[in-house]
Amino acid sequence: MAITVVGSVAYDSIETPAGRRERCLGGAATYFSLAASFFTDVRVIAVVGEDFGPEQEAVFAARKIDTRGIERAAGKSFFWEGSYLENLNEAQTRNTELNVFASFEPKIPGAYRDSEFLFLANIDPVLQRRVRDAMPGVKLVAGDTMNYWIKDHRAALREVLLGLDVLLINDAEARMLAGNNNLVQAARAVRALGPRALVVKHGEYGATLFHESTPKGQAPEVFRAPALPLEQVIDPTGAGDSFAGGFFGYLASQSELTPAAWRRAMFYGSVMGSFACERFGTERLEQLSRPEIDARFHVFRELTHLD
Amino acid sequence: MAITVVGSVAYDSIETPAGRRERCLGGAATYFSLAASFFTDVRVIAVVGEDFGPEQEAVFAARKIDTRGIERAAGKSFFWEGSYLENLNEAQTRNTELNVFASFEPKIPGAYRDSEFLFLANIDPVLQRRVRDAMPGVKLVAGDTMNYWIKDHRAALREVLLGLDVLLINDAEARMLAGNNNLVQAARAVRALGPRALVVKHGEYGATLFHESTPKGQAPEVFRAPALPLEQVIDPTGAGDSFAGGFFGYLASQSELTPAAWRRAMFYGSVMGSFACERFGTERLEQLSRPEIDARFHVFRELTHLD
Repeated sequence: MAITVVGSVAYDSIETPAGRRERCLGGAATYFSLAASFFTDVRVIAVVGEDFGPEQEAVFAARKIDTRGIERAAGKSFFWEGSYLENLNEAQTRNTELNVFASFEPKIPGAYRDSEFLFLANIDPVLQRRVRDAMPGVKLVAGDTMNYWIKDHRAALREVLLGLDVLLINDAEARMLAGNNNLVQAARAVRALGPRALVVKHGEYGATLFHESTPKGQAPEVFRAPALPLEQVIDPTGAGDSFAGGFFGYLASQSELTPAAWRRAMFYGSVMGSFACERFGTERLEQLSRPEIDARFHVFRELTHLD
Repeated sequence: MAITVVGSVAYDSIETPAGRRERCLGGAATYFSLAASFFTDVRVIAVVGEDFGPEQEAVFAARKIDTRGIERAAGKSFFWEGSYLENLNEAQTRNTELNVFASFEPKIPGAYRDSEFLFLANIDPVLQRRVRDAMPGVKLVAGDTMNYWIKDHRAALREVLLGLDVLLINDAEARMLAGNNNLVQAARAVRALGPRALVVKHGEYGATLFHESTPKGQAPEVFRAPALPLEQVIDPTGAGDSFAGGFFGYLASQSELTPAAWRRAMFYGSVMGSFACERFGTERLEQLSRPEIDARFHVFRELTHLD
């Protein structure tokens, strides 16, 4: 089943202990859609500037991602500059230029309307809600957010949470949103705000799925997927969005959302996150193949299973 | 097979968000031996003062732990006071009184000499090495250490590492010992110092076993055990030592150290660490039963396994 994703398509300048890249293709919707495209059809809603050219377009086309919802606006694309020199687990933002994103008004192409899965990547919750409301027929809605929206745009964010089935955030965001440092208690508080499932990402330690007790055919109550211990992290940019793409893309590829499907989705999320870190920007995701993905899935099983 | 453990038996005063306890029974050798006693025979080498009475002795006796190697010396027992008010993942030490521990000279009872497993809990590496050298016939030696010894007693510590099969330390200690922030590279560097297996404990995120590629019958290369997401952490004191006790106790109970046995040992370590956090001090370990342990082992399997 097809996924529609709304979020940023951007240029990133990135510095890590492994080196530096100027203005490589980035943005949450980019990483998400590349990762999800290995599992299902993906359709993107975003805005880019006049600096978005055939070379960037080709990255999406090579993965057969539908870009009819990527609007071209006058001006420059969203730009982010960050450094991981001090801490590979957390970017230090050096510069953010919203550019065409400042006046982004998501427009949903008619051809996207039969999407059964919707992913609201990390953008202004007012825009997330607008897209959510415009697609009432979707089967499953997942979303992401960040500390900025949790802290200063809580009312708008709470409206979004009411319309989410799955929220994917990191430890610090979960604790901030709940106002509770205990992860189990925080997860319960966050789920009380709307999403019946919560995925908390722990960076290099993996991720945990929290889900309420439900009848057969639903997700397990708690499930933990590891991250792959990597010999070298070249660039962690987009790892969380790639996790979301693997996770949600796999769910969308399943005819039934059984507990086993949710568990495997967590593993595929970790798999895609691990690949994203292996090269700068989207380089690794662009070159990936499904057999490589499934081989790594097997590595994750070996890493965690007793027999 | 029996385990001999050398380390501290102490009194702890502990403050956590859940409350405060004065002078409860503590010490690395105490937690380790209680946890390991559910799997195999345990023999303790330590020193206590005149304040160590029948009530404390009874805690060991109830678990059939051999205390003939616990020397009674004139003076007071080792005392530690710490707080977890700011961070449940890391104690802030308020006070340490070495007392009788300052002049500890480990003496190994003749009845301990046929122990096939030896655990060197976190004490002065000079003492760890002395005990190691005095028991050349042991089959498997594991040990722990801490930042203080890594930073200021590195030469003595390196002597100990040469005699270890398994080292159990936390993330920060592994990175400090290796001088490398990448966990995979740090693990390789630490194993090059002696121990063929390294267990890195990640606190609330679990633990990772690193082991060199070995023929069949040895441990897997990398294996990650989760920690249990706990609704309430009452007191994390001793969780790492309890992990070590469950891990090493389980290994000692096995007739053959197959890869599957090493994997299960990691799970039993996490199981015992999770119990230790549920009450103050050793309270939970004292009241535990083997069926409860195996039930939680099953919970850990559910938490991590795809099917």
